[in-house]
Parts: sequence; structure tokens; C-alpha cells
Amino acid sequence: MRQEFVGDIAQRGDMGWRACVPEPLKARATAVIGNIAPEDCARYPRLEWLQTWSAGVDQYLADGVLGANVRLSNATGAYGQTVAEHMFAMMWSLMKNLPAYTRNQSARRWHDEGRALSPDGATVVVVGTGDIGSRFAGLAKAVGMRTIGVRRDPSRTAEHIDRMVGFDDLDTVLPQADVVAMSVPSTPQTHHLLDAHRLEMLKPTAIVLNAGRGDAIDPDALFDALCSSRLRGAGLDVTEPEPLPADSPLWNEPRCLITPHVAGGNHLAATEERIIAIALQNVRRYAAGEPLRNQVRRIA
Amino acid sequence: MRQEFVGDIAQRGDMGWRACVPEPLKARATAVIGNIAPEDCARYPRLEWLQTWSAGVDQYLADGVLGANVRLSNATGAYGQTVAEHMFAMMWSLMKNLPAYTRNQSARRWHDEGRALSPDGATVVVVGTGDIGSRFAGLAKAVGMRTIGVRRDPSRTAEHIDRMVGFDDLDTVLPQADVVAMSVPSTPQTHHLLDAHRLEMLKPTAIVLNAGRGDAIDPDALFDALCSSRLRGAGLDVTEPEPLPADSPLWNEPRCLITPHVAGGNHLAATEERIIAIALQNVRRYAAGEPLRNQVRRIA
Repeated sequence: MRQEFVGDIAQRGDMGWRACVPEPLKARATAVIGNIAPEDCARYPRLEWLQTWSAGVDQYLADGVLGANVRLSNATGAYGQTVAEHMFAMMWSLMKNLPAYTRNQSARRWHDEGRALSPDGATVVVVGTGDIGSRFAGLAKAVGMRTIGVRRDPSRTAEHIDRMVGFDDLDTVLPQADVVAMSVPSTPQTHHLLDAHRLEMLKPTAIVLNAGRGDAIDPDALFDALCSSRLRGAGLDVTEPEPLPADSPLWNEPRCLITPHVAGGNHLAATEERIIAIALQNVRRYAAGEPLRNQVRRIA
Repeated sequence: MRQEFVGDIAQRGDMGWRACVPEPLKARATAVIGNIAPEDCARYPRLEWLQTWSAGVDQYLADGVLGANVRLSNATGAYGQTVAEHMFAMMWSLMKNLPAYTRNQSARRWHDEGRALSPDGATVVVVGTGDIGSRFAGLAKAVGMRTIGVRRDPSRTAEHIDRMVGFDDLDTVLPQADVVAMSVPSTPQTHHLLDAHRLEMLKPTAIVLNAGRGDAIDPDALFDALCSSRLRGAGLDVTEPEPLPADSPLWNEPRCLITPHVAGGNHLAATEERIIAIALQNVRRYAAGEPLRNQVRRIA
């Protein structure tokens, strides 16, 4: 098997890295590792397998993008660590009032912001217990938290989850939460999952974290809860919509910590290493004619 | 034994809580729990025992403050959790660029700040392995870090420290550090312990944390290292001097996160609970004529 690397190696690790594939190579390639432009897929007539470095592959699943005989595999599992760690950092930062201290620092102000919180002995409700939620639960347990997971099928267990419930029981467990950690995909069922009614169920000392999809929280209801002190804080890596509009009141809400959808991506070197490990394992499987890991599309 | 509570219970938990003790009670009291004013101690003629809610008791050890027959015990051990957790939160915040995102948020700016770091597989050099250092090491190990401790007598072990070295070996271990976590008391030996020379030994990706005493780091050398990108970041809960003067360049250094000596104190409810537990245990011992826990002063 002949392998060709396409791209400027000096750009490796850059956020917006894009490869420019020469036309003769497109004509020849039977397998591609990397997120090529969907509209360009038709230019790979011999393509048998596409391995993405992303977890999401919606754009390749659209009708007519990939031929019926092209296998598609993604990098699911590579992003759990980076996203879970980012959520965990947001939790600690809010518990210790660090956003307020950062703002005070900008004003050269030496001022005590009062009481802090500890995760030790606290309860986190982990909404969505895939790779991200399960890894977040692992970090939470390591620092003394109790973990309650919420997933569609509660009979399925997940690592680091002390107790699992279904979405039907969400309202039962929310009042117990010191932290709510959300990492659910965007579906009609998860749209505004955390709405005004559910936000009211939370303790006034609770912290809400979201690193899944922005529309899982009603942004107006969240702002109301934060600015009326019915919630201790929110850490949002995702918002509705994105980017967050300049006129959103959340920008200016002191209890809200906003990061611009950076929990995932290739912000962590370990993520790249996992993507490469998945791809290399699949290269071996592809060469041996074995089933691929992370295959997301059955061939015709 | 008769016990009297002095103070406004509604103020419990307030930062600047101070009790006003009536003069007749001062004349009668044989034991006091709480940090009374040192200049007031002479007004307690029958005093046999003073239990502070602080760890530091320097002010009571000065000549003439306490009678020769007065036992003094402190609340050492109550503050390790809150200080270690605050340092840990600063570490996570710096690893994930959260101070930069907080500043961007103030400007309503949706902007990717690039690469993040992970503690997983990283090495922390814990300088000072008392209650704070050991607890920090416990948190660090729980999230996958390797811990190297530095203490005066390296033959003494400390919990959660993988490897212990003496201060003579500090220069040997600093180049291995991804994080340096400092919690040493202020002594002639620890003054500017982290100076320009030692800061140069660190990796450019290293993060320095200080929650012990501010003068353990040379602030000018730290500023030079940060603003010339020879250091990834610094999290300082203590500074030299305190409060940090308004004209210090550190206030404005984006790689520096400053909090105003708030890691300890009674910022955490758990700290109060530990202080109360120590005091109650000592009340029992005092009543039974047993040796006190945390006694810091032998009676004449």
C-alpha cells in the first residue's frame, strides 16, 4: 500500500489546518485520512474509505456526497478528554470565583469576593453519559464528587457513574445537583432541555456547565436565573446561537463564564495523538480487510 | 464547665467577624476559643488556654502577650483543603486559558485562544509538603499527575508525594516540572526561593502557583519570565508586598492570574467545620486534663 502525506508539516497543530490535495492524487486515492471538503468527494473516483479526524460526520452523510461503496469512519473517543477537562476547569473556576478575580485584576483591584465552594462531597448530575460525560464523571469522582448520570437508556451503565437514571427522571435528580454537567447532542428531545421550569428546580448554589450543544439550555431562562441569583454560576462553551451575538446579556453577566466552543477541537496534544492512533489502527484493518473501528456508515 | 458564646450568630461565616467580649466575662474566663485581640489578652487574668481559629499564632507568641501558664493551640490542619483547592483551580484555569477567555468575554469577543494543557501525565513539583502541599499533591495525583515533593528533611515522607527531595535538590527537579506548586512559610531560607536563575530552569510551558507566602518568588524576575514567554503562566494568591501595589506590572500581565490572598480564611464551609472539630476535641481534652491537640506553646 502506497501512502502519501499532503500538507505543510509546519502547520501541524494549527487550528485551521487545511490540506491541498493535488488532482492526480485525488484520481488515484482509495483511502483518505482527513476531513476533505464534502463537495470535493466526487473527485475521488476510486475512494473506498474515508477516515475523518472529527467526531461529527453529518456533512459526509448527506445524499450524494459519498459513493454507495465508500466506508466512513470517524474519530469518536478522541475528544472526550479535552472537552471533559475544559468543563472541569470551568467548574473549578466558578467554584473559586476566579472569573470575578480576573475582572478585578484588570481593574488592579485587591478585593475579597467571599465564599467559595468545594466539589468534595458534592453531587454532579451528568446529563449525557457518552465519552465526554463519562470522562467528566471520572474527574469529578477523583475529587470527591458523587455522580448521577442521565441517559436515554438507564439500563446501560457508564464508567464513573454512581447511579444512572433515564431522561424521565431528570426532574427527580436536578434538585440534588450541586453541579449539572451537560454534553448532549442537539436533537428535538434535547432542545431547551434545561428550561425555566427545570432551572427553578436547582439549588441557588448550583453550577451549570454546558459543552455539548448550545440549544440544550434556554438562554433567556438561564440569564434570568443567573441575574436574579437563583443560580450560583454557569460555564458555557457552547451557546445558542453561535457565536453568541454581541447584544446577548450573558456576555455581561458576572455569574456566567463563556468560552467560544473551544473545549474540543485540537486544543490538546493528546487529542491529536488519539486521532492518529484511531487512524493508524484503521489503516492496519483496512489493509487486512478487517472491519473498521468507529465505522459510522454501512456500505451498500 | 460553663460555656458562653459571644458574638452575633447572624454574622457567622462573615469574613471580618469579630466578637465583642464583655469585661466581666474577660475577668472570669479560663479558656477562650477564638482570635481575641493580642493587646486584650492581659484583661483575661484567669486565662489557662487559648484556642485560635487561625493557623498562624505569631502575634500571641510575642513577649508579654500571654502569661507563662497559658496554653496556646491553633487550627493547623483546617486550612489545607481550601488553600490546596484554590491552587488547583488556578492551575486548571491557566491550563485552559480561562483568564484570557474571561477578559475576551468582558469585550464581548468570541475568539479562540489556541492550545490548552492537560495535567494528565504531567509532573508537579510541590515545594513545601505540609498540609497544603500534601493535599494539593492528592488532587494532582487524582487527575493523573506525577508528584515530586521538596521539603527540608526528605527522609520524612508525605501523603500523595511520589518522590521526595530536599531543598538542595530543588534545582535538579525544577527542569522536570510542568507545574510548580509553592506553599512554604516566609523564612530567610525561602525568601526569593524562585529567583531569576531558577525561573530560567523551568520549561516554557510550565505553570507556577504560589499560595504560601508572597516573598518566596522574586516578583520582578517572575514578570520578566512571563512577559518574555519563558513561562506559560503564574497563579498567585500571595504577592510581595500585599496588597499588590497598583503600579505592579503583574496586574496587567496576561499570563498571570492574581487572587488577593483568599485561598485560605473561611472561604469554605468545610474549613469552619474543621476548626470547630479541633476546638471541640480540645474542649473535651481541656476538661479531662489531657494534652491538647495542635498545642504550639509549652507552658512554663
